[in-house]
Amino acid sequence: MAKITSRSPLAPESFPDLPVIKGVRFSSVAAGVRYAGRTDVMLAHLAPGSTVAGVFTRSATRSAPVLDCQAKIGTHTDDGAAIIVNSGNSNAFTGRNGVDATRAVTSAVAQTMNLPEGRVFSSSTGVIGEPLPHGRITAKIAELVAGLDETGIGAAAQAIMTTDTFPKGAMASVDLPGGTVRIAGMAKGSGMIAPDMATMLVYLFTDAAIPAGDLQALVSGINDRTFNCITVDSDTSTSDTLLMGATGASGVAVTAQDTAFADALHGVMLDLAHQVVRDGEGATKFVTVNVTGAVTDADARTHALTIANSPLVKTALAGEDPNWGRIVMAVGKSGAAADRDALSIRFGDILVAENGWVSPEYKEDLGAAHMKQPEITLNVDIGLGNGAATIWTCDLTHGYIAINADYRS
Amino acid sequence: MAKITSRSPLAPESFPDLPVIKGVRFSSVAAGVRYAGRTDVMLAHLAPGSTVAGVFTRSATRSAPVLDCQAKIGTHTDDGAAIIVNSGNSNAFTGRNGVDATRAVTSAVAQTMNLPEGRVFSSSTGVIGEPLPHGRITAKIAELVAGLDETGIGAAAQAIMTTDTFPKGAMASVDLPGGTVRIAGMAKGSGMIAPDMATMLVYLFTDAAIPAGDLQALVSGINDRTFNCITVDSDTSTSDTLLMGATGASGVAVTAQDTAFADALHGVMLDLAHQVVRDGEGATKFVTVNVTGAVTDADARTHALTIANSPLVKTALAGEDPNWGRIVMAVGKSGAAADRDALSIRFGDILVAENGWVSPEYKEDLGAAHMKQPEITLNVDIGLGNGAATIWTCDLTHGYIAINADYRS
Repeated sequence: MAKITSRSPLAPESFPDLPVIKGVRFSSVAAGVRYAGRTDVMLAHLAPGSTVAGVFTRSATRSAPVLDCQAKIGTHTDDGAAIIVNSGNSNAFTGRNGVDATRAVTSAVAQTMNLPEGRVFSSSTGVIGEPLPHGRITAKIAELVAGLDETGIGAAAQAIMTTDTFPKGAMASVDLPGGTVRIAGMAKGSGMIAPDMATMLVYLFTDAAIPAGDLQALVSGINDRTFNCITVDSDTSTSDTLLMGATGASGVAVTAQDTAFADALHGVMLDLAHQVVRDGEGATKFVTVNVTGAVTDADARTHALTIANSPLVKTALAGEDPNWGRIVMAVGKSGAAADRDALSIRFGDILVAENGWVSPEYKEDLGAAHMKQPEITLNVDIGLGNGAATIWTCDLTHGYIAINADYRS
Repeated sequence: MAKITSRSPLAPESFPDLPVIKGVRFSSVAAGVRYAGRTDVMLAHLAPGSTVAGVFTRSATRSAPVLDCQAKIGTHTDDGAAIIVNSGNSNAFTGRNGVDATRAVTSAVAQTMNLPEGRVFSSSTGVIGEPLPHGRITAKIAELVAGLDETGIGAAAQAIMTTDTFPKGAMASVDLPGGTVRIAGMAKGSGMIAPDMATMLVYLFTDAAIPAGDLQALVSGINDRTFNCITVDSDTSTSDTLLMGATGASGVAVTAQDTAFADALHGVMLDLAHQVVRDGEGATKFVTVNVTGAVTDADARTHALTIANSPLVKTALAGEDPNWGRIVMAVGKSGAAADRDALSIRFGDILVAENGWVSPEYKEDLGAAHMKQPEITLNVDIGLGNGAATIWTCDLTHGYIAINADYRS
């Protein structure tokens, strides 16, 4: 199993005091899927009338539970819904057996909770390619249902962790003309994180009343600016899933055009996305890569991702080395338009390089001081246009190697 | 400066006994460009009548010496030629100063050796973004010229090393109807190695008589199957340069259509390319990734490169962990066509996974035993067509982090 290392130095001080979201209840148990001595399955139940939306990995080898969720997500019924998640085994690349295991879990939940199977969503996270011992999960469903409680979200966030060193939660409340609505969310994921959709498991809940189509539009749009803008190691999981449920229990109606709600949801999703990076395997630096001045936004994103994923940039960050030459290298290799002599690079506000060379005003001790901080900002202006993008990442350390060279043996 | 670690465990037993190539002489000195107590500049002189060809990095931020070589390479004169190379400083991203430094070095060589400037090629390798102390090099040119010797190639291979743990040389001789011709070559490069052209510094010499256009065609074509098929860390250097000189001193004429010569040159270039991977920073495994059954060769190459560059695959290799699930993950994220259930994976000859799942005949101890070897082969069949590609790479270890988190500080 994963080596659980000590809490990331970039972790928030504590898990937030998440509000109760009326209409959703949580439960978690220790089912012994793979890990011993900890909870590893969580169940969430959404009251009748809730809507559900989701975004998923684009991997061509995505897991059975992801395919199952994708098949179910577009169809709405008023029966309520359930989400069941296990850690320790991803049920990915498990062939026909994987499809059967997913069906066994979701149909057991549907039967016990009297829900249509199409309203039971499941996720699995952990090792790839091993059969999911689904009997250990189904044996616990009655216990899970009996334990459902509207205050259980924090314990649920614990149950879905794999190599995570801390549970991840975020919240917001929004005062709208019709009243106050609340948003609460949890996430897991610290390795195999790269933007090709959601990059981890994320579950979001609100008591706003949002039509399913509007909820999907909100989640898809904001996902592109949050979870799709983070990378730990450039590796895309086969299991990435984000699900959001809206119970409507507040009685306050919200649509996709409601900017106050969208802003609040963006804040929650960005907070969780940043927490995933802060828990990047072995991470000691939280790094913001801002690229401006590219020919297009897409080019800016290509440059920013290439910088953020470069092993030589990431190891320089780990070594607190203001090695801006490696940023030049990354821009050069990205394939997006660049001109060596139009490029400028800043560490935070410190001008490092411009006009194809180091700035005359740059002093290496300034750059070195910026690199010693736990939070580093790389500002790269390509100097060719107005395209811009921001990517968040972390450094590449001995910790990453230690975690991943031992993961399965 | 680079931390020089002990000799790679994957290194060949010794530097080969390279043959004299009539018409080319070598010299090397300690100029103190950056390193102390070692040689760091080499000079090669090619006799009048020699032809020269080259291939270069495609980086958008390539260095001044690369741009200078590219401008010169297409024009042939019968005056002979020179190649001067320094280690310790790449003269990359050094603005106008970098152009002037390259000119200062090449014009000093041209003047001292009575060559047209257009026939003096230079390369620089080492740290990016610091002014090249070209005066230290030009001060040594008379000494370099005085030291030229046809047996100096081994010492020259030493002088161009940076983070390399061993000098790299390879050779071949070919019996042709007109007589025997010889090929000898050297290379450097152990990090910042990825195929987007040549990926390092490589200098090749032959006593065959080859017209410049034929020599260029040979070098470009074989480069695509050798140096463009290796990756250490996915990072592309701004300085990658391959130059080949043909002196004609054997009196044996060769053209681009001469398959015996092309095969021999391919052998030399592949040998050097493999040596670069064997000296990958921190490498403990030499890994061959064969992808077959892709829809196109280009798709196969995309899959193979994605597998070879995946940090999770590379750390599994480092940990001797037969974690084939990470190979599935890499195929899934590559963007090239794949079908989870058509995929099969072999470690060497050991069938690991097929039909979307682990093979019933696979035993994990067989996979684990394969992973313990210093040379590992990953055979991945996509199961969709006839596209094939091979990429060579190494694992990602604590050694890579140690070397690159301290490189410049």
